[in-house]
Amino acid sequence: MQHKIDHKTKPTGALGILEVLAKQIGTVFKTLEPKILQPNIVVFAADHGIANHGVSAYPQDVTRQMVANFLEGGAAINVFCRQHNIQLSVVDSGVNYDFAPISNLITAKIDRGTKSFLQGPAMSKEQLELCFEKGSEIVSAIAQKGSNCIGFGEMGIGNTSTASVLMSVITGIPIEDCVGKGTGVNDEKLRFKNEILRKAIDSCDGNDSLDEKLAYFGGFEILQMAGGMLEAYKNNMLVLVDGFICSVAFLIAFKKNPSIIKNAVFSHQSAEQAHIKLLNYLEVKAILQLDLRLGEGTGCAVAFPIVQSAVAFLNEMASFESAGVSNK
Amino acid sequence: MQHKIDHKTKPTGALGILEVLAKQIGTVFKTLEPKILQPNIVVFAADHGIANHGVSAYPQDVTRQMVANFLEGGAAINVFCRQHNIQLSVVDSGVNYDFAPISNLITAKIDRGTKSFLQGPAMSKEQLELCFEKGSEIVSAIAQKGSNCIGFGEMGIGNTSTASVLMSVITGIPIEDCVGKGTGVNDEKLRFKNEILRKAIDSCDGNDSLDEKLAYFGGFEILQMAGGMLEAYKNNMLVLVDGFICSVAFLIAFKKNPSIIKNAVFSHQSAEQAHIKLLNYLEVKAILQLDLRLGEGTGCAVAFPIVQSAVAFLNEMASFESAGVSNK
Repeated sequence: MQHKIDHKTKPTGALGILEVLAKQIGTVFKTLEPKILQPNIVVFAADHGIANHGVSAYPQDVTRQMVANFLEGGAAINVFCRQHNIQLSVVDSGVNYDFAPISNLITAKIDRGTKSFLQGPAMSKEQLELCFEKGSEIVSAIAQKGSNCIGFGEMGIGNTSTASVLMSVITGIPIEDCVGKGTGVNDEKLRFKNEILRKAIDSCDGNDSLDEKLAYFGGFEILQMAGGMLEAYKNNMLVLVDGFICSVAFLIAFKKNPSIIKNAVFSHQSAEQAHIKLLNYLEVKAILQLDLRLGEGTGCAVAFPIVQSAVAFLNEMASFESAGVSNK
Repeated sequence: MQHKIDHKTKPTGALGILEVLAKQIGTVFKTLEPKILQPNIVVFAADHGIANHGVSAYPQDVTRQMVANFLEGGAAINVFCRQHNIQLSVVDSGVNYDFAPISNLITAKIDRGTKSFLQGPAMSKEQLELCFEKGSEIVSAIAQKGSNCIGFGEMGIGNTSTASVLMSVITGIPIEDCVGKGTGVNDEKLRFKNEILRKAIDSCDGNDSLDEKLAYFGGFEILQMAGGMLEAYKNNMLVLVDGFICSVAFLIAFKKNPSIIKNAVFSHQSAEQAHIKLLNYLEVKAILQLDLRLGEGTGCAVAFPIVQSAVAFLNEMASFESAGVSNK
């Protein structure tokens, strides 16, 4: 693979991160001519009990409204998936609303939102298991249809708070370094968010296993993403990771099976300060730095053509020999 | 425009640099619904007398060989242009080789390479003028055919040396900060490169006007790019700037007409250390940081889908009102 890359008509290494990506993708798919097949982005949506404690700039009902927006094709992720011919799947992982049966909504509802982790565990042990099962089922079905590249996205008012505490309790990084402004809170709200999340971490004391921590803080959509990522790895799919919240789901999957890192492509470094710390913890770099902080899998979709460029140069560029170009 | 962007179904500013780009493109095209029409990348190729003084890792003949590779479709820029349906134009600005008439090569040859600026001026005053004229003609023809978005790329063994001295004499930044490793020289060669370029700058002393400096150091392809950019601005096209060498061409165009900055999109921050200094001098930021250092317009091509994403969200995303989503 490295020989093939180095004999393309360009100076060694001149395609930078595209070369790193090409090598990774060829290695994952065990071929010198990798192809991305039926790329898919799955957006998992769920509500969070913590959203009722003033941590977000938006009311909880926006989760439901945005799911409707996804289904109608008007959200940012719809636009970018259309642009790049990426199939979009929308999952109700646990929105606080009962949707009428809609053909293009995947139902994997665990409950109508998690309980607030300020008052106790967000979910039961059974619900936690169900999250991993459902996430896995959804991705398995996508793999069966022939996709070898899957991006993960999320929607859930309050879920940056959930993601921040999960990052802190899993990595041991202080909560202050794991908290960001989410999708639009001000400085005062940020201090308040820090404070209540620190209290929540204290009250979780005694729940020492990874699974106990996951059930305590929850996030139906975050845990379904983690389950889905593990299944994607089992099916040897390329796993496109979106921004901060999605990277926390990846962190969980990684703790369950560290090998998954071989298949992971970090599409975008979020404007959330916690994200770069998490990427550093995982010892990875993201493809794009565009100051996005939207979620929905938008980073995966916007970075997707770069992934395609990596595959394209590997498959289509001439070599020094074939083009009759002098090497050094 | 800002109202339209802020009422899309996303938190204010959550699409980061895509929002900045959308606003710029809408402003340039004076419409709330901008469209990119017939995007084109033009690669200008020429030889440099300085290449015979051991500043490059590759023999001068590679310029000619790579032009042949462009025309046969095997270079990186061909692959990325095909990927994104970008029209590619290849220009012989002054390659040290007489090509047989080939239908898809644009002939704008000034001479068979510049003279070495170690021994005197690279070109005459008349040649300098001809560079601006030819560059302008080429871009004018592309604009006439209906393109409103043009990317600039280059090929020329030794042209990072030319670009480095031009950057230094135009900006006043010391030559050491303007020199990079090009497309593959080692540390020792880098010191040597620094030294002879410093001497060349000393020997240029007395040539004080911008045009005298440009003729002294040259670069047929660099000056044709600068002329082409000025013409693109006259035609109100979006100007996609590639890496270091292309940015030096932009610097020249900018010194001739500072308004051009409004239409410029800096696609990629090169791995060349001098490039970030030049971008800082121009007070601009590039879209991508992918460690590319290839030239050929590859940064423009790889960044192009991001530009399209900016236009797409502006035109296609629902607003809070239209989607029935609660704003803050």
